[in-house]
Amino acid sequence: MSTADRLSMPLGEAMFSMRAIRRLRPDPVSEEDIRDILEAARQAPSGSNRQPWHFLVVRGDEQRAKLGAIYREAWWSKRRDVGINSPEDIPEEDRVARSAMRLADHFGESPVVILVCSTSGAPVDTTGVIPATQNILLAARALGIGATITSLHPSVQAEVRELFGMPEEAQVVYCVPVGYPQGNFGPVSRKPLSEVASQDRWGDPLPGA
Amino acid sequence: MSTADRLSMPLGEAMFSMRAIRRLRPDPVSEEDIRDILEAARQAPSGSNRQPWHFLVVRGDEQRAKLGAIYREAWWSKRRDVGINSPEDIPEEDRVARSAMRLADHFGESPVVILVCSTSGAPVDTTGVIPATQNILLAARALGIGATITSLHPSVQAEVRELFGMPEEAQVVYCVPVGYPQGNFGPVSRKPLSEVASQDRWGDPLPGA
Repeated sequence: MSTADRLSMPLGEAMFSMRAIRRLRPDPVSEEDIRDILEAARQAPSGSNRQPWHFLVVRGDEQRAKLGAIYREAWWSKRRDVGINSPEDIPEEDRVARSAMRLADHFGESPVVILVCSTSGAPVDTTGVIPATQNILLAARALGIGATITSLHPSVQAEVRELFGMPEEAQVVYCVPVGYPQGNFGPVSRKPLSEVASQDRWGDPLPGA
Repeated sequence: MSTADRLSMPLGEAMFSMRAIRRLRPDPVSEEDIRDILEAARQAPSGSNRQPWHFLVVRGDEQRAKLGAIYREAWWSKRRDVGINSPEDIPEEDRVARSAMRLADHFGESPVVILVCSTSGAPVDTTGVIPATQNILLAARALGIGATITSLHPSVQAEVRELFGMPEEAQVVYCVPVGYPQGNFGPVSRKPLSEVASQDRWGDPLPGA
């Protein structure tokens, strides 16, 4: 069965239930599913069809553990810069921050991490890989697999490049941990359309919004 | 019928047949379709769920004509900078460039143009609106509507902001002309997965790719 056939979930269902999944079950994600997710990624558009991307799939135990340690340390280092030194400094009610912390602390336990890399050299074209990243999230959702976009702290780029034998001109733009969700997929909370859309003049209402 | 229900095309079919559509038929695009496309756009993820976007739908004849004139002039101005002064300077065999020229010359005849704006103020967060833009392209595809991503030349940002009464902190990141395609949707040409993916170490093959 082709990837196009395997991604049979209706587009609307995928888009409207694709929340960021930060808590992953340890169950493995099959090689076939990862391949389908990346087949979807490479369909994305890019300027002049340059396809300025490379997808590095981190699956091996050792590589996941090393990446996880680097990610965790960089995450806490960034928090220490703003006075957050330990879990107690993050309020229980800040659920997104608590969930990001939990993800950072367990990053290396993600069944698979996809490193979305830019290959365009300096200046790094981060924007060029984003449509492909959105395709990754949607394709994962269609396969019942959760994911979220995280970025790598610039201070550890060199270390990560070394760990994975990346060439100088490549750069990790996003780290996308993927796995089966502990929670549920479901609707996301967004501003109403009437607030974020206009017609013909800024602030003039969009019909039907 | 809800937007999620109306976007019933399987995700795989939408992704694998979503080529850039630059030649549009003059047939109108319904308000309902535009609303569904933007409902899809606003489901996109963004950092800290900030939703740093605004979608300005250009539909009125006068506004489309004015935007079209600005876009066309900016497009040719950019080409003149590299020595391209008239259609004869673009080789017939450079089909993408010819097609971009044709789009620029007829930009104002697009049935609808969606201006994807960033609202995050300086520094402008262009990356934040890209997942939403990819959702626009996919949702349009699912409705049989063609689209492509174009960007506005920086030199005309102020003029466009004035034309649409945009606030200072807003910026047009992309102009997306939408309409029914003159040609066909269909598969895109991309590098093989084996060339753009690795596992655990850069250059090590991804199983199944």
